[in-house]
Amino acid sequence: MFVSFEGCEGVGKSTQLRLLREYLDRTGQDAIYVREPGSTDISEQIRNVILDPANTQMTYMTEAMLYAASRAQLVREVIKPALAEGKLVICDRYVDSSVAYQGYGRDMGAELIKRINAPAIEGCMPDLTVFIDLSPEHSWRTKRNDDRLEQESNDFFNKVYQGFLNEIATSNGRIVPIKPDIDKNVTSEKIISLMRERGMIK
Amino acid sequence: MFVSFEGCEGVGKSTQLRLLREYLDRTGQDAIYVREPGSTDISEQIRNVILDPANTQMTYMTEAMLYAASRAQLVREVIKPALAEGKLVICDRYVDSSVAYQGYGRDMGAELIKRINAPAIEGCMPDLTVFIDLSPEHSWRTKRNDDRLEQESNDFFNKVYQGFLNEIATSNGRIVPIKPDIDKNVTSEKIISLMRERGMIK
Repeated sequence: MFVSFEGCEGVGKSTQLRLLREYLDRTGQDAIYVREPGSTDISEQIRNVILDPANTQMTYMTEAMLYAASRAQLVREVIKPALAEGKLVICDRYVDSSVAYQGYGRDMGAELIKRINAPAIEGCMPDLTVFIDLSPEHSWRTKRNDDRLEQESNDFFNKVYQGFLNEIATSNGRIVPIKPDIDKNVTSEKIISLMRERGMIK
Repeated sequence: MFVSFEGCEGVGKSTQLRLLREYLDRTGQDAIYVREPGSTDISEQIRNVILDPANTQMTYMTEAMLYAASRAQLVREVIKPALAEGKLVICDRYVDSSVAYQGYGRDMGAELIKRINAPAIEGCMPDLTVFIDLSPEHSWRTKRNDDRLEQESNDFFNKVYQGFLNEIATSNGRIVPIKPDIDKNVTSEKIISLMRERGMIK
């Protein structure tokens, strides 16, 4: 089974991934944890190029293709082999982030981004995508501006959020929005319940 | 006008590019000289990832997408602006190399490689491609094995060469094979004559 986590910046996605991992560790359930872009040596090298604040000249198309290249490596080197062994794979961001950030946020178009990514993912889509559903104006933390992508405007982040909502509407139930509670443990319970209902975890 | 140079390893392509540049400099003709992958800060960073001999785990798809990403940056940052200013652009390798090396050499298929590259090049194809036409078994120099791509087998390089020949056949005269002479200056004269005939240089 393959689960991805999505959401805008500062919505508590990393915290929720940590709480899920703590629960699975505590209950003796194995999983493979990866993040995008990155999680292989080569993908991390690509990540460094993408996120380097000095790379202000990077075109949107180059950025979109670097994400796809990083993803191609992760899919073939980690995700597909793990799924073939029957493991649970939990991925912090996946192709939906490219669609939301590049397709909607950058106005490149969702269809173009899906077309660029199709050869990279080789049909490998999540069985479930947990979308931490908090709009940019309600996000928990102040923007840190510590990498190139976080230096974007409010307008950009609003388009990204709307993009996620559009994708949810056409995902046939694959992408499930989870409204985060002020208590992070309540939110974690919601996610664990959802994954239990889908038979992914105990 | 946009001219690319193609050919297998060790056929004297770099020498021919140098001789052409010396001729153009000597006769006071300006041109923009670029090489692939590379020629922008970001493309050079991508080049380093592609060619690092330590990256033995790189999948063919990741490699193909990194070339496309590097190309997208070069096209938008250098080639298109230069062509818009009416300059002559001379490029050491371009999309035909991806088609030959990844499409044929790696058996990924020419059509897949063209599809991956289409968004990167935005319709920007060379007006002329000079193919230094020497088969791998006749190439001048011994393989140096100093980057990841040069560590390939004879079978790989034969497929690359055949791929170039296939692409010539369907290029409607865009790709022109030039048989190199044992005297590099004779070869250079052939190339200069060809470019003169096409009205690209004086």
